[in-house]
Amino acid sequence: MKNRLQYLEMAISIAEEGINKGYGPFGAVIVKDDKIIAKAANCVTLKNDPTAHAEVLAIREAANILGKPDLDGCEIYTSCEPCPMCLGAIYWAGIKKVIYAADRVDAADAGFNDKFIYDEIFLDPIDRNLEFMKINHPKAWNPFETWKNYEGKIPY
Amino acid sequence: MKNRLQYLEMAISIAEEGINKGYGPFGAVIVKDDKIIAKAANCVTLKNDPTAHAEVLAIREAANILGKPDLDGCEIYTSCEPCPMCLGAIYWAGIKKVIYAADRVDAADAGFNDKFIYDEIFLDPIDRNLEFMKINHPKAWNPFETWKNYEGKIPY
Repeated sequence: MKNRLQYLEMAISIAEEGINKGYGPFGAVIVKDDKIIAKAANCVTLKNDPTAHAEVLAIREAANILGKPDLDGCEIYTSCEPCPMCLGAIYWAGIKKVIYAADRVDAADAGFNDKFIYDEIFLDPIDRNLEFMKINHPKAWNPFETWKNYEGKIPY
Repeated sequence: MKNRLQYLEMAISIAEEGINKGYGPFGAVIVKDDKIIAKAANCVTLKNDPTAHAEVLAIREAANILGKPDLDGCEIYTSCEPCPMCLGAIYWAGIKKVIYAADRVDAADAGFNDKFIYDEIFLDPIDRNLEFMKINHPKAWNPFETWKNYEGKIPY
């Protein structure tokens, strides 16, 4: 049986070993019942995909392997504290345990925006470095109304 | 030239029209220089991918089409306020304008966790419904050190 420190060390190794192959310096490992389900390094520039963080990729792979979007019972080990995007993905996936090594301040020191984005999300929308505009469209509620009434829906 | 209300209405239509085909009730449209670059509906259960929110999918498609992870100059129109995952993705993509119709309270009323996840992220990690554990691993900083020293890196 591997222990948490070993899984975390694997995530750190993935983060470090990919750098000279074009990966970003972040790695993640998803474990269930002491078995590795998925692992990934950051592929933002390799794949031209701003969402291709290690955690997001590992979650997508694990969900694909398990055949469902719900990763209940899984743990995620990540070389650095998940950014708000990845933390959101972790919640949506139903992962209940997050173990990480470096944090958002370390990431900022290496040139990454994790801390900036956390700070932004905490701001009132009007104070953000982003125009965030709610328009009261008369049809705004239509999709949810249709969803509520649709008997064939799969809740998630 | 289309106006903002029309792009928003398109996002709402995408959200509504996909429901009986198995999509979740959310839609997003990405626009640059008054041209639609990408549009998507939520595919979480269709693709077994908890990250397949409309905004994330539209961002991934737009970045793929533009051939770079940076969507600077793009606007995103979305049927519902982006959740923390999607808002994080929007920041990473460099999108500076977000226009939405319904909000996290409407989404909660329709059975979605957007508001719950916002509330969780605002909590001190120790108070979250999630074990969030930083381990001071001696190699924690290695990936960032290697990254800083790697001359071939593509900053993002």
